Amino acid sequence: MQLEQPFTGMRRRDLLKLIGMTAGSAAMYQAMTSLGLAAESDYKGPIKLEGDPKGASVLILGAGLAGMLAALELRQAGYKVKILEYNGRAGGRNWTIRGGDTVTELGGYTQKCEFDEGLYINPGPWRIPYHHNGLLAYCRRLGVTLEPFQQINHNAMLHSTDAFGGKPKRVREILTDFRGHTSELLAKVAKKGQLEGQVSKEDQEILLEALQSWGALDADYSYKSSLATAEFRGYEKEPGGGLGAEPVPGQIISASDILNSRLWGALANFSLYEFQTTMFQPVGGMGKIGEAFAKQVADLITFNAKVTKIAQNEKGVTVTYEDAGKPGTAKEASADWCVCTIPLTILSQIDIQVGGPMKAAIGAVPYASSVKVGLQMKRRFWEEDESIFGGVSYTNLPITQISYPSTGFNKGGKGVLLGCYTWNGPNSYEFTAMTPQQRVQKAVEYGAQIHPQYKEEFENGVSWAWHRSPFTLGCAGDWTDDARKEHYNNLCQIDGRIVLAGEHASYIPAWQEGAILSSLNAITRLHQRVMQG
Amino acid sequence: MQLEQPFTGMRRRDLLKLIGMTAGSAAMYQAMTSLGLAAESDYKGPIKLEGDPKGASVLILGAGLAGMLAALELRQAGYKVKILEYNGRAGGRNWTIRGGDTVTELGGYTQKCEFDEGLYINPGPWRIPYHHNGLLAYCRRLGVTLEPFQQINHNAMLHSTDAFGGKPKRVREILTDFRGHTSELLAKVAKKGQLEGQVSKEDQEILLEALQSWGALDADYSYKSSLATAEFRGYEKEPGGGLGAEPVPGQIISASDILNSRLWGALANFSLYEFQTTMFQPVGGMGKIGEAFAKQVADLITFNAKVTKIAQNEKGVTVTYEDAGKPGTAKEASADWCVCTIPLTILSQIDIQVGGPMKAAIGAVPYASSVKVGLQMKRRFWEEDESIFGGVSYTNLPITQISYPSTGFNKGGKGVLLGCYTWNGPNSYEFTAMTPQQRVQKAVEYGAQIHPQYKEEFENGVSWAWHRSPFTLGCAGDWTDDARKEHYNNLCQIDGRIVLAGEHASYIPAWQEGAILSSLNAITRLHQRVMQG
Repeated sequence: MQLEQPFTGMRRRDLLKLIGMTAGSAAMYQAMTSLGLAAESDYKGPIKLEGDPKGASVLILGAGLAGMLAALELRQAGYKVKILEYNGRAGGRNWTIRGGDTVTELGGYTQKCEFDEGLYINPGPWRIPYHHNGLLAYCRRLGVTLEPFQQINHNAMLHSTDAFGGKPKRVREILTDFRGHTSELLAKVAKKGQLEGQVSKEDQEILLEALQSWGALDADYSYKSSLATAEFRGYEKEPGGGLGAEPVPGQIISASDILNSRLWGALANFSLYEFQTTMFQPVGGMGKIGEAFAKQVADLITFNAKVTKIAQNEKGVTVTYEDAGKPGTAKEASADWCVCTIPLTILSQIDIQVGGPMKAAIGAVPYASSVKVGLQMKRRFWEEDESIFGGVSYTNLPITQISYPSTGFNKGGKGVLLGCYTWNGPNSYEFTAMTPQQRVQKAVEYGAQIHPQYKEEFENGVSWAWHRSPFTLGCAGDWTDDARKEHYNNLCQIDGRIVLAGEHASYIPAWQEGAILSSLNAITRLHQRVMQG
Repeated sequence: MQLEQPFTGMRRRDLLKLIGMTAGSAAMYQAMTSLGLAAESDYKGPIKLEGDPKGASVLILGAGLAGMLAALELRQAGYKVKILEYNGRAGGRNWTIRGGDTVTELGGYTQKCEFDEGLYINPGPWRIPYHHNGLLAYCRRLGVTLEPFQQINHNAMLHSTDAFGGKPKRVREILTDFRGHTSELLAKVAKKGQLEGQVSKEDQEILLEALQSWGALDADYSYKSSLATAEFRGYEKEPGGGLGAEPVPGQIISASDILNSRLWGALANFSLYEFQTTMFQPVGGMGKIGEAFAKQVADLITFNAKVTKIAQNEKGVTVTYEDAGKPGTAKEASADWCVCTIPLTILSQIDIQVGGPMKAAIGAVPYASSVKVGLQMKRRFWEEDESIFGGVSYTNLPITQISYPSTGFNKGGKGVLLGCYTWNGPNSYEFTAMTPQQRVQKAVEYGAQIHPQYKEEFENGVSWAWHRSPFTLGCAGDWTDDARKEHYNNLCQIDGRIVLAGEHASYIPAWQEGAILSSLNAITRLHQRVMQG
């Protein structure tokens, strides 16, 4: 073990400083004013809806996170609240499919999930970034226990059918070698003086030092196979104990092979703000969040209520709905105000009485297409055979990625892989067009190219294609920049007595935080409107 | 949410391939022979000690992981086993200090740990890499539940008193900006044709694409403040929901400021093989591993046994020891063989009857110096105020780093920070020279420069200086390359009837895996020797 070096090259100065300190020659602690480190978050802490709404009523459409949050907070503020929900369960896309569950897609595809007890797949959201402050605050308030979601895994695979004869490489190998080769190239240019004019002489010296550290370059600024580079990329033979335990470094991959493999394209995933460490998942499945909200507001929800019409006048809102299982059984619900969280794919097909700008906005947002496949394996071979604990392997195969469970590590037993997760593009449409059984079969066939153990270990699978999802008809709002410019504010403004909320009415589409923040923003404005009388 | 792009620049080709596939023009699945991905590990699976040792006896010195593993496996193989242990507890450096524990350093420094129930600090090892296969296998076998240890945290701090007016920066800012600026420099050089001769023309084009992806460069290969770079480095104003929710990117730091800050020196920590994701810790403290071993072999251990002499002849080994609390109470223990796991710092002071080469080796290994300080805080302000969940902040202050607990996330309540962790160098000696109380005080004073909340939230602390540790007189074996060349094999070879084991007799010093593999290797060779008769 070596301690991580805090700042290479600083040790001599540390020593000098320490000598200064023990000689008592310098005051060590400087008064510090403000550290000003936090970014301004859109979540401003627990919502405060002050003032008496005097019995005003709100009808909420949709019992997903946005809708249930609105119900929870508006009831607390003194409103009379009701929720209409299309599904027979609360949560919306916050949803976990577990063994024994039956799910039905459009087209009549019904699957019974055959996972063992305790195993699950999250067809919708499955991870929570550390900066999703609103969602984290509700998890804490509602008692949802979180555990880390391993997004980054240096030992996961990068795979392309067009590179290295179709053999996957480890992330750590591609990462270290790409960084090493590019650092070497830049260091050589710097040494030749070719950066003059762009970088000052003093800075060039520091740059060389920095590239040596960053790229694991040797004393001559070369990137080579060695025990020093093995400390980043791993070994051919690991260091051991006792006799015969000397380590052997692996062979680095050439710059040209790395570039032509195009596997470098996956490296950005490991530092995107949305995927940075530490990420979270609820213990037991993402659906635990929806369940926790539902515990608070279940008494307000009418399930299996398919909204067909949303009308309003100066006095209130009237919503027509029917029993989702029995078309033609029209019922009505009325309230002074309406918070509508119905996905725009569906809302755009409902007769809704709002002005032209909001109507245009409702029709302007395409929805992302996405397919997930969960595969139960007899044993956690990725841990046992390949030392992959959580994280994601990326591939150019249509499955796009394989994600390993972030829970129950090192215990053995069965496990469920996310064996396919597509997002837009031809892969999504291709998988959506298949039956769930075909998707599972394809996911197993493709995945076996990365993990041959699939053939022995696969037991059963379940799949969800969001464009076949009856309650969303797509995965999530997929705004273009132009559409946002023209329509976003029109979508979010209060139209008469109706306000929209949900991930689609946010700058964080497809994330639960978008739904949370959108709902908080919408009900804050609605309450202000009510208070203004 | 956007799906991580698997390989930038590949989408067009994916599309073409898909068209090919649906037209049935190509066989998609290639037979793959061997994937050959795993590095050769020194851990070869469960040890097999075959053959009957016919009542041979082994005396083991030290009930740390190496000693207890040897006891467990040798008893199982049919040996008569006894352990002598200096401490009044098993585990050695595998150790967790919890509220209520009393610990005493050399010099008579006794501390009573005042942490609240459930809070702890690991004075010794505190994290387990995913590739420490031997240790992970014993954790699984002994039922030690693991949870992820967050080593990498993009939102933790990098801090230097000499940079940015002493204000810390986030890892994600320094990482993204360093990578962006160096990518921009290299891309500009490539565009000017200055890489010709080193990189082929075709590869240069891919290199430009790769640098754009890797460095978050714009269409002109420039690195600039923008929403695109904010997707890696974070925002000044985070994206939100509803109206007024537009994000504002942060201002990038200039190349010169980054270089001169020297904060780049910490970036290598985030990809060292030993610190790569996924790391682990036992739920409830590292000491759970020692406790699990002790459960298996407690009946074999004599505690408080201070070894003073190790003698051997052709027939066996005789060890003289005394009650650690009562000098002069000499006792003897004998056996056919001896596995000695006593740290070399102490063994070199014991009268041991081994040949010159092993004796020289025992005296040739300096021990690393290390100090840790645990600080209990009234609330987990790092999570609540700063969105830091686990991970490590690095600083040029003598405390070197602050590590945040990797458990109990997002629940609130109290927490224990690792407020100082030095490894060799003047900082270690300086902290070792202080009283435990002074160390705690200094750790609070220094830490407050990074987290001003320390002043309000600090409650109590505990500290351990390994060079004041009565049972180790140092932290861990700190081999030089020269010493290893000359002495390592002599240290590990069986000398008559004595074999040494422990992290010091491995190529993974200071890690528990070194102790595990060393012990497995030593007892395998010992058993072979016994079987040879």
